Amino acid sequence: MAIPEITEKLLAAKKAAGVTFADLEAKVGCDEVWIASVIYRQASASKEEATKIVEAIGADPSFIEPLTECPVKGSLDPVIPTDPLIYRFYEIMQVYGMPIKTVVHEKFGDGIMSAIDFTIDVEKEEDPKGDRVKVIMCGKFLPYKKW
Amino acid sequence: MAIPEITEKLLAAKKAAGVTFADLEAKVGCDEVWIASVIYRQASASKEEATKIVEAIGADPSFIEPLTECPVKGSLDPVIPTDPLIYRFYEIMQVYGMPIKTVVHEKFGDGIMSAIDFTIDVEKEEDPKGDRVKVIMCGKFLPYKKW
Amino acid sequence: MAIPEITEKLLAAKKAAGVTFADLEAKVGCDEVWIASVIYRQASASKEEATKIVEAIGADPSFIEPLTECPVKGSLDPVIPTDPLIYRFYEIMQVYGMPIKTVVHEKFGDGIMSAIDFTIDVEKEEDPKGDRVKVIMCGKFLPYKKW
Amino acid sequence: MAIPEITEKLLAAKKAAGVTFADLEAKVGCDEVWIASVIYRQASASKEEATKIVEAIGADPSFIEPLTECPVKGSLDPVIPTDPLIYRFYEIMQVYGMPIKTVVHEKFGDGIMSAIDFTIDVEKEEDPKGDRVKVIMCGKFLPYKKW
Amino acid sequence: MAIPEITEKLLAAKKAAGVTFADLEAKVGCDEVWIASVIYRQASASKEEATKIVEAIGADPSFIEPLTECPVKGSLDPVIPTDPLIYRFYEIMQVYGMPIKTVVHEKFGDGIMSAIDFTIDVEKEEDPKGDRVKVIMCGKFLPYKKW
Amino acid sequence: MAIPEITEKLLAAKKAAGVTFADLEAKVGCDEVWIASVIYRQASASKEEATKIVEAIGADPSFIEPLTECPVKGSLDPVIPTDPLIYRFYEIMQVYGMPIKTVVHEKFGDGIMSAIDFTIDVEKEEDPKGDRVKVIMCGKFLPYKKW
Amino acid sequence: MAIPEITEKLLAAKKAAGVTFADLEAKVGCDEVWIASVIYRQASASKEEATKIVEAIGADPSFIEPLTECPVKGSLDPVIPTDPLIYRFYEIMQVYGMPIKTVVHEKFGDGIMSAIDFTIDVEKEEDPKGDRVKVIMCGKFLPYKKW
Amino acid sequence: MAIPEITEKLLAAKKAAGVTFADLEAKVGCDEVWIASVIYRQASASKEEATKIVEAIGADPSFIEPLTECPVKGSLDPVIPTDPLIYRFYEIMQVYGMPIKTVVHEKFGDGIMSAIDFTIDVEKEEDPKGDRVKVIMCGKFLPYKKW
Amino acid sequence: MAIPEITEKLLAAKKAAGVTFADLEAKVGCDEVWIASVIYRQASASKEEATKIVEAIGADPSFIEPLTECPVKGSLDPVIPTDPLIYRFYEIMQVYGMPIKTVVHEKFGDGIMSAIDFTIDVEKEEDPKGDRVKVIMCGKFLPYKKW
Amino acid sequence: MAIPEITEKLLAAKKAAGVTFADLEAKVGCDEVWIASVIYRQASASKEEATKIVEAIGADPSFIEPLTECPVKGSLDPVIPTDPLIYRFYEIMQVYGMPIKTVVHEKFGDGIMSAIDFTIDVEKEEDPKGDRVKVIMCGKFLPYKKW
Repeated sequence: MAIPEITEKLLAAKKAAGVTFADLEAKVGCDEVWIASVIYRQASASKEEATKIVEAIGADPSFIEPLTECPVKGSLDPVIPTDPLIYRFYEIMQVYGMPIKTVVHEKFGDGIMSAIDFTIDVEKEEDPKGDRVKVIMCGKFLPYKKW
Repeated sequence: MAIPEITEKLLAAKKAAGVTFADLEAKVGCDEVWIASVIYRQASASKEEATKIVEAIGADPSFIEPLTECPVKGSLDPVIPTDPLIYRFYEIMQVYGMPIKTVVHEKFGDGIMSAIDFTIDVEKEEDPKGDRVKVIMCGKFLPYKKW
Repeated sequence: MAIPEITEKLLAAKKAAGVTFADLEAKVGCDEVWIASVIYRQASASKEEATKIVEAIGADPSFIEPLTECPVKGSLDPVIPTDPLIYRFYEIMQVYGMPIKTVVHEKFGDGIMSAIDFTIDVEKEEDPKGDRVKVIMCGKFLPYKKW
Repeated sequence: MAIPEITEKLLAAKKAAGVTFADLEAKVGCDEVWIASVIYRQASASKEEATKIVEAIGADPSFIEPLTECPVKGSLDPVIPTDPLIYRFYEIMQVYGMPIKTVVHEKFGDGIMSAIDFTIDVEKEEDPKGDRVKVIMCGKFLPYKKW
Repeated sequence: MAIPEITEKLLAAKKAAGVTFADLEAKVGCDEVWIASVIYRQASASKEEATKIVEAIGADPSFIEPLTECPVKGSLDPVIPTDPLIYRFYEIMQVYGMPIKTVVHEKFGDGIMSAIDFTIDVEKEEDPKGDRVKVIMCGKFLPYKKW
Repeated sequence: MAIPEITEKLLAAKKAAGVTFADLEAKVGCDEVWIASVIYRQASASKEEATKIVEAIGADPSFIEPLTECPVKGSLDPVIPTDPLIYRFYEIMQVYGMPIKTVVHEKFGDGIMSAIDFTIDVEKEEDPKGDRVKVIMCGKFLPYKKW
Repeated sequence: MAIPEITEKLLAAKKAAGVTFADLEAKVGCDEVWIASVIYRQASASKEEATKIVEAIGADPSFIEPLTECPVKGSLDPVIPTDPLIYRFYEIMQVYGMPIKTVVHEKFGDGIMSAIDFTIDVEKEEDPKGDRVKVIMCGKFLPYKKW
Repeated sequence: MAIPEITEKLLAAKKAAGVTFADLEAKVGCDEVWIASVIYRQASASKEEATKIVEAIGADPSFIEPLTECPVKGSLDPVIPTDPLIYRFYEIMQVYGMPIKTVVHEKFGDGIMSAIDFTIDVEKEEDPKGDRVKVIMCGKFLPYKKW
Repeated sequence: MAIPEITEKLLAAKKAAGVTFADLEAKVGCDEVWIASVIYRQASASKEEATKIVEAIGADPSFIEPLTECPVKGSLDPVIPTDPLIYRFYEIMQVYGMPIKTVVHEKFGDGIMSAIDFTIDVEKEEDPKGDRVKVIMCGKFLPYKKW
Repeated sequence: MAIPEITEKLLAAKKAAGVTFADLEAKVGCDEVWIASVIYRQASASKEEATKIVEAIGADPSFIEPLTECPVKGSLDPVIPTDPLIYRFYEIMQVYGMPIKTVVHEKFGDGIMSAIDFTIDVEKEEDPKGDRVKVIMCGKFLPYKKW
């Protein structure tokens, strides 16, 4: 789970600047998860977006350009991640994968939820019995083409 | 990805009865994904819930009891599932795992989203550019205990 | 690489009927690779398409309905297939994966070639030095959504 | 997915020179995917080809010789690549591997498509509903020898 | 099983200071296993806890802050650890996993023992036939939510 | 995670008899987890113990003898179990493996906790904030022999 | 390492007939390793060849046709075979793989030895110090195509 | 597939000296594949052999001694090598492993071909239809000992 | 770890006959571990040896012939066996592999201990502090051939 | 199979001193395999033992202390080692694992051979037909505890 060097430097700058991802969302005008994805080099930004991110955390402008490059994505190691927070998503796929598949096919037909034309949000849902993490994934349904 | 025999029989009964999971949601009073999880033997139902499910699909009452048992969960094979719809969830974990982790920690502190005190919904979001699949996960935040 | 039972029966019927996939392409009006994918339970057909396929190979009409179901896809075993013809596609991904990625990003920006809104054709290119297999993949470019 | 150091330097030179792979295709007289393969050290060039590539991107002549060496090929890590663009080729092999195998055998007999006597092209197909990525693989059919 | 650099430095400081984990338990007021987890970067401390730990081993105050960060957890390599002491826990899971599962379900219903709202103690049980290692795990029972 | 046939039959008998593992503990005079281990064929019983178990659940006496055989142990599949309850023990090993190792070595010297001269208990700890699962492992410390 | 049913039946017939592979080589006019490959369903025979093989071992003529089908090849399990005789070939690849690669490239340029346009012979070399197994592989050199 | 540093230096010296492995075979009086194995640190040379090799490529005498050490052998990574030239040997083992095993047992009885008391030669066989790579393996037959 | 059917039947016969492996050693005149290897289909017997074994356990003579066949060896599953008794040999290899290698090379030169021209004995060493298992492996040293 | 830096330095010192492991056995008064295990950081020595070892090879006294630390054990990579000498132990486990298990259970009951309260010796057995490597493992039998 090697974090790229640029990510470490940008996170250090962000920390030094005392800016949260929620602050970045407000300043940059994009969702905080997406901004985190750019910083973790899982997504590429336009020059304008990269400039806003780098300026918002007070990092060196030399970091702007690298954030616009198309990264090699999917950086977790090992194949089944051991970090408990991340592993739970693997577990959800294992336990609820087939049920979701069945329900999606029944609602939409044969096809998939795109993970590219896709957004993901993380929200805090306050709850007296303990706050809840809400993760909202929304991807275009792509029907299988026949030819 | 061996589907248990009971699942195949219940799905066949459901098909013969012409009932959708959405119908089951209305009849049973539980979410359709959860009902699918019971049928795929990833979740256990109470006797009442199992009875409603089995009756709603017109299956034999002998299926009620097995649905109340605590199953061995997580049935996908191989370790990284090949079915494209299910794989996308693996991909989402790979690409967005670290960004989500960072944002959750910033919002909640050190801990995880529970995959047990957890719900998952699948919705169809109509969109002129192509309908979208919305998957809403909501799990209790569990802070790491110190001792 | 367990072939589903229905696939074996349909292939036997096709053989008995003396029909090639090229014949099926002509009779059904769909590409032969796609028809093979339906028979190998990697794609789902409409009732009309399934009927044409089943009739064209003289199989029992009871096979029509199963061909319309959304299959669990990706049936190769082990994780890196050993069959030489199929392995070569793994090798092509290993050797040419990064070069293709670079060229696609340069031509299209950050995103992927869809494997869902996707067609694949296999053609025979006659060549005096030895005939050639031409595999033409054509998938919609899906740009990464930002949000 | 460790990119060799020489690749990083050549890509940096190419970027500084503002040359695209399409430009290189025109200047070097070879396909852009093949040139990318040479730069990613998946293919070896002749001295003349290497010289043209290195000159076209304005890199140091000391890079010419290394590009003529026979590389150890297939550099992706892990075994099932996580980058979504590259993974789709794994998925295509998983889903369409057996159908392609069947059709190739029917058209050509027992044998394989060579991945050595082989070319691969990437084209942009403009389409009002969204441009498409066209990947054309063309390999000599190699019939199994009997002895 | 790469030990993070900070861990090595803190362990060296601890050794130089001649302090045992049992001493740390007394000085910091937290369990020794938890303190070891903080030092191995498997758990995050509050600023106060981190200060106490760093002071107790006489390390540089610059180490305080890093100990408050939420680490990427689960650092063992390979997937099945080879160190005999650690492997035994894998073996216990293999041999007693199903029996424990059955007994927990019978005692508590469908759900799990949390590994987050969780404590673990290691005690020495003196025994004339040979001292015994006692490991006490105590995690909140989390019943599966239905929805 | 194939449950042996004999296990399924004994569990069915136990269910029909309406006996819990706690009941078995009382009747057989051995810990319930150990009895479950015998039934899951992870431990071997003496003829007397086997007889008591089989009688207590009203199963056929022909099951006595097989329970005395030394089984091939460790039946979980895949290598990293997917069942959430069982996986948590893998996670505990991943997260707390090195901290436990350090503390054990400090308390006992170089050696391990035996998983053979070993007992494991599962207890319910009532707690107003939610009951807790207590798992107590107790294994003989085995110091590394020098020779 | 599941041997196909047809292989088992043909080997049984061959045994009953008291015919060795060397006899088959003489009767069929093809190499004994190739004939063994046909029987193990790793190679496909023409109708004439299949007929000769089936007749030579006195098997039922219904086995002729299946031997002409293009098999899914590469049947060893697990990924690194454990049978000592077969494993040695894995070891040879591990130990001598890079040296062979270097020598082949020096002798032939960039390319490979085909495993399709390929023959393999097994000979007994008598030697007073112990007979030797001679395995002669001979494959067409395939130079990498440039395009 | 990390090449040891000493290998890289010796190969560079060999290149600078303009010596081929065939030249080395003539000068050293050993087979070129074996010499390559020594250089790739898969085999150990005597002092005399090492001296001849090092002198023949004009390398520093300090390299002599390391070549006499018994190396840790088998350096390919990953477990199934991706380099097409080397992979073909894996494929040959997969496809022809069982047929070879059968023929060897029939010719020699139960035992194996040694990969230690073993030689391997690579020859170029000129052929108007395309030159062929001939790989001759010759290992002592080792019968299984009974005791 | 699927035990072959013939093994199960022979073990059942052996049990019914009340014969231990030590008895078999006396009756057959071969080591008990080797006889167990024949029964587990890891070694092949001569007709005479097989006859003695089958008669000594009172099994049907039809079992004689199959015991003379050369088996596919190495039947443990998964790749790293989970049975604690068997796993310990994996652990010994992991922990003492390199030390043994060094000592063997120092004593014998470059080469290996044969696992084919090899015997293995299991003895009980009585010891007041607890009996000990003695496993004596004895294999011919095979020096690496140079050529 | 990364050898720790300290191991490399100690082996270099040992070589410079011209001391064999057999010499070390005589000087230190411990078995040579155990001493090699200490140097390879698979075992920990007492201060006295470490001092003797370090002095016997003429290494710097600063190496004494690190040799007394409890190492993370089991350093082989990959999971199934490729070095032929070490692999043979894996093969022995695969081929003779079940036969040994059966014989041990028959001789001792249910339990294992300890790999901790364990010694291993390597001896040279001179033999006119070729010297033999004798590896004697001797571990305490640990019976499974019942509770």
